[in-house]
Amino acid sequence: MNEAIFTVNNLWILMATVLVFIMHLGFATLESGFVRKKNTVNILFKNSMILSIGLLSYCFVGFNLMYPDNPINGFFGFDGFGLSMPQGAAGAIDYADGAYTYWTDFIFQAVFAATGATIVSGAVAERMKLSSFLVFTLVFVSISYPITGFWKWGAGWLDARGFYDFAGSTLVHSVGGWAALACVLVLGARKGKYTSKGIQAIPGHSMPLATVGVFMVWFGWFGFNGGSVLSADPVGVSLVFVTTCLAAAAGAIGAFFTSYIMFKSHDLSMVLNGILGGLVGITAGADQMSPTAAIIIGAVAGVIIPISVVFFDRKLKIDDPVGATSVHLVCGIWGTLAVGLFGSLAGVGQFVEQLIGVAAIGAFTFTFAYVLITVIKLTMGIRVPEEEEIKGLDVSEHDMEAYSEMDPNYAFATAK
Amino acid sequence: MNEAIFTVNNLWILMATVLVFIMHLGFATLESGFVRKKNTVNILFKNSMILSIGLLSYCFVGFNLMYPDNPINGFFGFDGFGLSMPQGAAGAIDYADGAYTYWTDFIFQAVFAATGATIVSGAVAERMKLSSFLVFTLVFVSISYPITGFWKWGAGWLDARGFYDFAGSTLVHSVGGWAALACVLVLGARKGKYTSKGIQAIPGHSMPLATVGVFMVWFGWFGFNGGSVLSADPVGVSLVFVTTCLAAAAGAIGAFFTSYIMFKSHDLSMVLNGILGGLVGITAGADQMSPTAAIIIGAVAGVIIPISVVFFDRKLKIDDPVGATSVHLVCGIWGTLAVGLFGSLAGVGQFVEQLIGVAAIGAFTFTFAYVLITVIKLTMGIRVPEEEEIKGLDVSEHDMEAYSEMDPNYAFATAK
Amino acid sequence: MNEAIFTVNNLWILMATVLVFIMHLGFATLESGFVRKKNTVNILFKNSMILSIGLLSYCFVGFNLMYPDNPINGFFGFDGFGLSMPQGAAGAIDYADGAYTYWTDFIFQAVFAATGATIVSGAVAERMKLSSFLVFTLVFVSISYPITGFWKWGAGWLDARGFYDFAGSTLVHSVGGWAALACVLVLGARKGKYTSKGIQAIPGHSMPLATVGVFMVWFGWFGFNGGSVLSADPVGVSLVFVTTCLAAAAGAIGAFFTSYIMFKSHDLSMVLNGILGGLVGITAGADQMSPTAAIIIGAVAGVIIPISVVFFDRKLKIDDPVGATSVHLVCGIWGTLAVGLFGSLAGVGQFVEQLIGVAAIGAFTFTFAYVLITVIKLTMGIRVPEEEEIKGLDVSEHDMEAYSEMDPNYAFATAK
Repeated sequence: MNEAIFTVNNLWILMATVLVFIMHLGFATLESGFVRKKNTVNILFKNSMILSIGLLSYCFVGFNLMYPDNPINGFFGFDGFGLSMPQGAAGAIDYADGAYTYWTDFIFQAVFAATGATIVSGAVAERMKLSSFLVFTLVFVSISYPITGFWKWGAGWLDARGFYDFAGSTLVHSVGGWAALACVLVLGARKGKYTSKGIQAIPGHSMPLATVGVFMVWFGWFGFNGGSVLSADPVGVSLVFVTTCLAAAAGAIGAFFTSYIMFKSHDLSMVLNGILGGLVGITAGADQMSPTAAIIIGAVAGVIIPISVVFFDRKLKIDDPVGATSVHLVCGIWGTLAVGLFGSLAGVGQFVEQLIGVAAIGAFTFTFAYVLITVIKLTMGIRVPEEEEIKGLDVSEHDMEAYSEMDPNYAFATAK
Repeated sequence: MNEAIFTVNNLWILMATVLVFIMHLGFATLESGFVRKKNTVNILFKNSMILSIGLLSYCFVGFNLMYPDNPINGFFGFDGFGLSMPQGAAGAIDYADGAYTYWTDFIFQAVFAATGATIVSGAVAERMKLSSFLVFTLVFVSISYPITGFWKWGAGWLDARGFYDFAGSTLVHSVGGWAALACVLVLGARKGKYTSKGIQAIPGHSMPLATVGVFMVWFGWFGFNGGSVLSADPVGVSLVFVTTCLAAAAGAIGAFFTSYIMFKSHDLSMVLNGILGGLVGITAGADQMSPTAAIIIGAVAGVIIPISVVFFDRKLKIDDPVGATSVHLVCGIWGTLAVGLFGSLAGVGQFVEQLIGVAAIGAFTFTFAYVLITVIKLTMGIRVPEEEEIKGLDVSEHDMEAYSEMDPNYAFATAK
Repeated sequence: MNEAIFTVNNLWILMATVLVFIMHLGFATLESGFVRKKNTVNILFKNSMILSIGLLSYCFVGFNLMYPDNPINGFFGFDGFGLSMPQGAAGAIDYADGAYTYWTDFIFQAVFAATGATIVSGAVAERMKLSSFLVFTLVFVSISYPITGFWKWGAGWLDARGFYDFAGSTLVHSVGGWAALACVLVLGARKGKYTSKGIQAIPGHSMPLATVGVFMVWFGWFGFNGGSVLSADPVGVSLVFVTTCLAAAAGAIGAFFTSYIMFKSHDLSMVLNGILGGLVGITAGADQMSPTAAIIIGAVAGVIIPISVVFFDRKLKIDDPVGATSVHLVCGIWGTLAVGLFGSLAGVGQFVEQLIGVAAIGAFTFTFAYVLITVIKLTMGIRVPEEEEIKGLDVSEHDMEAYSEMDPNYAFATAK
């Protein structure tokens, strides 16, 4: 490969890294907009820590679990702790017989990995103990995410069978969604959510924050999907940009009409989640779809969102403050199966492989997360005391408020 | 063209696409900061939908109206509905005898097109019916924007005459500004704005949101102008970065001094709009100007802003909550004419061509928008009922508030 | 150098420019989140103006002071006012025997320069006169920053001795920190901060704004450090991405544990400043460190943050509302010295050179800033009157509020 092509490929994956990085700000603002004011600092704190924990643990453990040079079998492999630095500067270039350096490979995968853990954060918001959440995140992102990631992207058994997941509808999004579901089931609903008087809607405290979040996440998705081409291949990356954008737009439209029919109102949170649903849905096959197929996949995801949110909230009584299970789990499964229905790979055989992948990764992840959160519950506890939940986690866990309401003159007053 | 150059050119246009994309977040936050709290969800909702409608309609209609392969004449052409996919992967590369793939061409132009419609959204804020606005947007961005765009960028009659508009001071910004003006004239002012007691200033509800918006828009403008080089040509793109930044900075300084002289105050909204005015002003000739010319063009735009805002508001009594007509229409015209006054193309002949372009596109766009909004007024209605305007559009159109002020303890209280 | 490599190198420095640009939005939101509501417009205004002043003054003076073609000696040089345009388009390419055009060189350095002045803005918040601050900024960024910058990056005397500062732990961050310290010493604390009754904590008004700011700054740092490679060299840039990210993450963890031990609380502002401390710390040697060294440097910076903040606030009684001296000055010095302790350059000789660089640049900058702010104090005055400080600078300097609290119905009411 010539030097210029190598340099531009590497540059694109680095730019994609920067874009995926800022998705973490998107999730932080999106989730904090959808919770109450009294739990806002807690969300911001968790999201800052998840990113840091994710990067460091992926450096120590995750990367070598997900992409081992010599795996034991199709289910597991491990190269040892820490980054195995290539030999010298030249070595780093030689490493990338593909398209980028060892360092680029690591940092792109590391910001990706951290997004998986972020998904859980919104679902357990407003009642989970901070320390327990951070321990869960650390173990989940260090062990569970890389193992299932290895099955496909590390050339493990699912890859060998023909399962296809371009950029992670399953490997990232439904994995995060399964973990969120397990945690919410063990944790239970927020106080006052489901009562004898009925189901209480608990609106988020800031729609501007939530909207900033969704735009930031969409912005980052250009890198999430576009970077998953793993080179700057002009046709490959540009097609992925087109399918990704059209699916997101169609998700908005699908959610717009469906929620209008259901609620007779123009529901901003549904349109925002419709965009996210469209993005999650296209992710498994973003490189395989025509514009028309992308629009269909996105529109279906948009239709799914309000139905799924209502189903989880009112029928199953599963309390997920930000709709993470609908967006990441349900639309992640839809997008993965859609690879068997539309685009270049469509076919019965492929559909079956997609089902096998969804089921296997779902079973592993849900079980891992369920056992882990149960162990944490039995040892550390996972729920804040009732009076702290009432006061809000900002004061009880962080000793501060998101928006200081102090008398603007207090400083002078004290000085007298 | 060699593969590496092709790849890096294509990559830059894709990165520029990502930057132009985030301008939509900029406009969403800028506009919502400049309106009252009670209409914030409405602005966020509109801006989310405009982007989605813009992308999909440009895919179905706009792209083939703006860049037809075989136009009927210099005024009109159409290639049929939907994207006409190139033949296979190789075909996609061959397509771009210029510098990028068919898909890149489409997605860059699509995010551009959506910005034109966004300009209208701020001007009609706080009183226009949501459904009517969305219909206006759909028709305007599908038909009007691409037709005038074709006249210049699609190699139509204005291009043949020698009209110059590098990145859209006229084709995007004054087009959006004319549409905004037509809508505001038909729609009328907000209740209580112009009364027998005088003119009421209606301050926006969040200066941080507005400031975030302007920085985001400036950030995106690196892609808007830089991407309009249509390749990664090192001298071309870097000169455009320099002229764009210097004009924006000079716009801030021009507005700073002018508004201080006019109001004896350091007016943040004027400085922010001065930045935007400088950006709009340099856009028509960003590739043609020296740094000194860029600073002059930007500074003049900055001086124009407070004068124009006051003129529209107090003399013409045209109620434009965000100053969109001053920023996009007035500075768009100024920037287009400036190409005849400064830089490599300056001259009397060019100035006349610039005038012809401004007038022709203005006449078409204003007429189209005026007729369209009038038809919508007569059929669907365009204004929310008075009591809904008082309550705010967030509650009446969306059934939700931007900032939930619920008692933080309510959930627990209900549970008892 | 072949055309494709030249183009991709140039493109990366332009993308890095865009990333550094958005750090200014990061600083604007970070600082406004950490001040009280009544001084928010003032911060936003200052940060908008600093960027504009910084770009224009660097164009007129700074660039030619920092990178003179024919310096007088190792301490000073000047090429004359304004940009000295290269001869024609071809000339622009020839200019860059390195990796990018003259225009790219200028714009990347210009957005960098403006960050130095921004650091001061947070430290003097809530009590400094706007006009005096803008004059200070103009002189400081035009003269002081470029002169010390020249000593190292312009190939001056410190560069000749062997002082190393990859991307500006000293040349940008401690320089900004010294200026902030000088200003705060002359300016004094906010009213009511240190009283006979004790030290008053003055919490910032918006943690979401502050968090958005820190993520934006981290996002921009990919360009700040990555762009300082001055080419798109695959190994060079990707290693810098890895060390930068790991140091930031380790900074968060270091601050998390240290602040928990000190305050028995999960302090969001400490974790956010820990991230910034880690970023400042790695900056001097981001291209020299292994991942392990980067984690150590970042973790130490994170440990330093809460200790330093408390030391400045409670022991020295230096009132710095945003912690700028701890983040930029203390961690900037730490990072610069760390180049002598870790990585490829480590050694006693290098450590001594690092000390000399820190001391020389610190002495010059602190003296320059102290004299300058004193002269401004004696001529224009630097502090707002006490009653304006109480009311808040938004009303007294800007005649507006950050968050308008008007009755949402007022417009209609007036109309009656």
